[in-house]
Amino acid sequence: MKKYNFYAGPAILPREVIEAAAAAVLDFEGMGLSLIEISHRSKQFVAVMDEAVALVKELLNIGDEHEVLFLSGGASSQFYLTPMNLLDQDEKAAYVDTGTWASKAIKDAKLFGNIEVLASSKDKNYSYIPKTDNIDTSYKYLHITSNNTIFGTQYQTFPDVAVPIVCDMSSDIFSRPIDIHKFDLIYAGAQKNMGPAGTTLVIVRKSALSKVSRVLPAMIDMKNHIEAESMYNTPPVFPIYVSMLTLRWIKNNGGVAGMQVRNETKAQLLFDEIERNPMFYSPTVAEDRSRMNVCFLLHNTALENEFIAKAIGAGCVGLEGHRSVGGFRASIYNAMSAEGVQALVDIMKEFERTHG
Amino acid sequence: MKKYNFYAGPAILPREVIEAAAAAVLDFEGMGLSLIEISHRSKQFVAVMDEAVALVKELLNIGDEHEVLFLSGGASSQFYLTPMNLLDQDEKAAYVDTGTWASKAIKDAKLFGNIEVLASSKDKNYSYIPKTDNIDTSYKYLHITSNNTIFGTQYQTFPDVAVPIVCDMSSDIFSRPIDIHKFDLIYAGAQKNMGPAGTTLVIVRKSALSKVSRVLPAMIDMKNHIEAESMYNTPPVFPIYVSMLTLRWIKNNGGVAGMQVRNETKAQLLFDEIERNPMFYSPTVAEDRSRMNVCFLLHNTALENEFIAKAIGAGCVGLEGHRSVGGFRASIYNAMSAEGVQALVDIMKEFERTHG
Repeated sequence: MKKYNFYAGPAILPREVIEAAAAAVLDFEGMGLSLIEISHRSKQFVAVMDEAVALVKELLNIGDEHEVLFLSGGASSQFYLTPMNLLDQDEKAAYVDTGTWASKAIKDAKLFGNIEVLASSKDKNYSYIPKTDNIDTSYKYLHITSNNTIFGTQYQTFPDVAVPIVCDMSSDIFSRPIDIHKFDLIYAGAQKNMGPAGTTLVIVRKSALSKVSRVLPAMIDMKNHIEAESMYNTPPVFPIYVSMLTLRWIKNNGGVAGMQVRNETKAQLLFDEIERNPMFYSPTVAEDRSRMNVCFLLHNTALENEFIAKAIGAGCVGLEGHRSVGGFRASIYNAMSAEGVQALVDIMKEFERTHG
Repeated sequence: MKKYNFYAGPAILPREVIEAAAAAVLDFEGMGLSLIEISHRSKQFVAVMDEAVALVKELLNIGDEHEVLFLSGGASSQFYLTPMNLLDQDEKAAYVDTGTWASKAIKDAKLFGNIEVLASSKDKNYSYIPKTDNIDTSYKYLHITSNNTIFGTQYQTFPDVAVPIVCDMSSDIFSRPIDIHKFDLIYAGAQKNMGPAGTTLVIVRKSALSKVSRVLPAMIDMKNHIEAESMYNTPPVFPIYVSMLTLRWIKNNGGVAGMQVRNETKAQLLFDEIERNPMFYSPTVAEDRSRMNVCFLLHNTALENEFIAKAIGAGCVGLEGHRSVGGFRASIYNAMSAEGVQALVDIMKEFERTHG
């Protein structure tokens, strides 16, 4: 039976990417060796890294102001790497608290400067995105989390501010066009819209670096990674290769503008059903709803297990909601097809027919 | 043509591991999903992590004193993570400088305490392992690099000291039995003897943690990773899975004692030829020669390119020496067969016959 993968992350990847990745594990480009046992300095892998960087630049319309890095580790490491690189101990930065990941970013950043939490939606279980336009220009940067995987909220437009934005874009990068000029730094763990867990994309404005007075360990200093073109140490070869394949797939499917259309269509399909179907409701404020992670609940929570069982029976897996919200969460990243979302909508309709 | 992979890292993995890894990328355990698109909290992947940790404990005879972690990133990140977790700013630690990686570890550690370099073999291009037995007991720990990939040297016995050892074991872990009681912390990037690049194994004595006064960012604090059983954040799923497969392979092939016999046999075969063949010589002191990375040179350096070409012609790839030593380097990690080393020896003999 065909499976529709609604996991929040690690998450669905295009089938053609998975098949190409498996083939490369057996034999990489006719070398007679596996992708995972060759030198990262082989010309074959250097070409992969170069193509991955070039695709990021092309897809997001990045010019010479920014550098693109593929680092090891996850976005959680950026919670300290970012302030250590960008913020001096006596400087101040503004953070917005929109959920679990934002809170963790704030906690770590407080070790490396004066962190002010300008706004938080914790008062309503993070069900909306607080507005933070026109903030004071004395902040070194404004840190936001563009999409909140757990709570199903997303910035539909980025704040209109006169300070640079630093953004954790882990769960919606490459899902829509962005204006790169607004950002001093973007970081994104691969395992939602880009590839397998194990690499983190960092896009950083060159002129934002080299301004802190603290001495940084080599692996923390982003300048080292820029100079070494993401090969200061052995990079996570396989996650980067698969990310490159996914970036190719995005390019071949209309780029990020194409992804935006695809994602809005899917989200609309699902939200229309949530609004229409009297058994379900959305916990999030309409204007801030995520196009990547759609949270929804049953009015009758006693039926939750049965709904999950019906979904699994129809091939829809990974729909369990995070314990912070409950109910269900359909993660419908780039690689999820409209067919998959329709399969879920059909289950919701059927559930209404049999239980409504 | 069959390829013999002598790359220094990322490096050769057992063929059965590669085939199982490729199969899991296509469909993981009959789930109808790829290994690289499932939740790290799925019961299937939690079982992988549990088995990987259990295998490390079984293979290295680790009891309850130590914890086993699979972290993201490379061993280079441990150059700062280790002192940040183990050493207070006013405490002192001893380091031994045996090459490039040891030097980098020293440079980073100096930011986090009083670092004394007890000995260095830099005077002779790192061609030997300096002796550091019976050191002062006032050091918090002694940091060593057990095997020096670039220079082809290796501790054949660990220093006889009354302080705990912290060891970068990236390039020879699981190649031989070790006495775990000597170590407060062992770290090892996966990409030599364990798996693909992208995860680092950390084995840490529990009682060595929680003793520093500095406040640590969440991802730096090893206690968080212990508490979350290496799932504080999304772990590098694929590199950990492949590492688990390799650990199974080690267990099924005699464990680390079996690997030791296998590795000594291979190293002996190659060193015997280097000693016998008048065209070649070893740059390293005999008693400190690595069983993992065998460096050797031609007396007539003008023939180097021709030798490499002959080797490639016979399927032996990755033999180019590091620029710091020159000549050739045969990395003969666990997964390299005696047949592969014999193929290299045959080329050396043939080279003597045609050029000697």
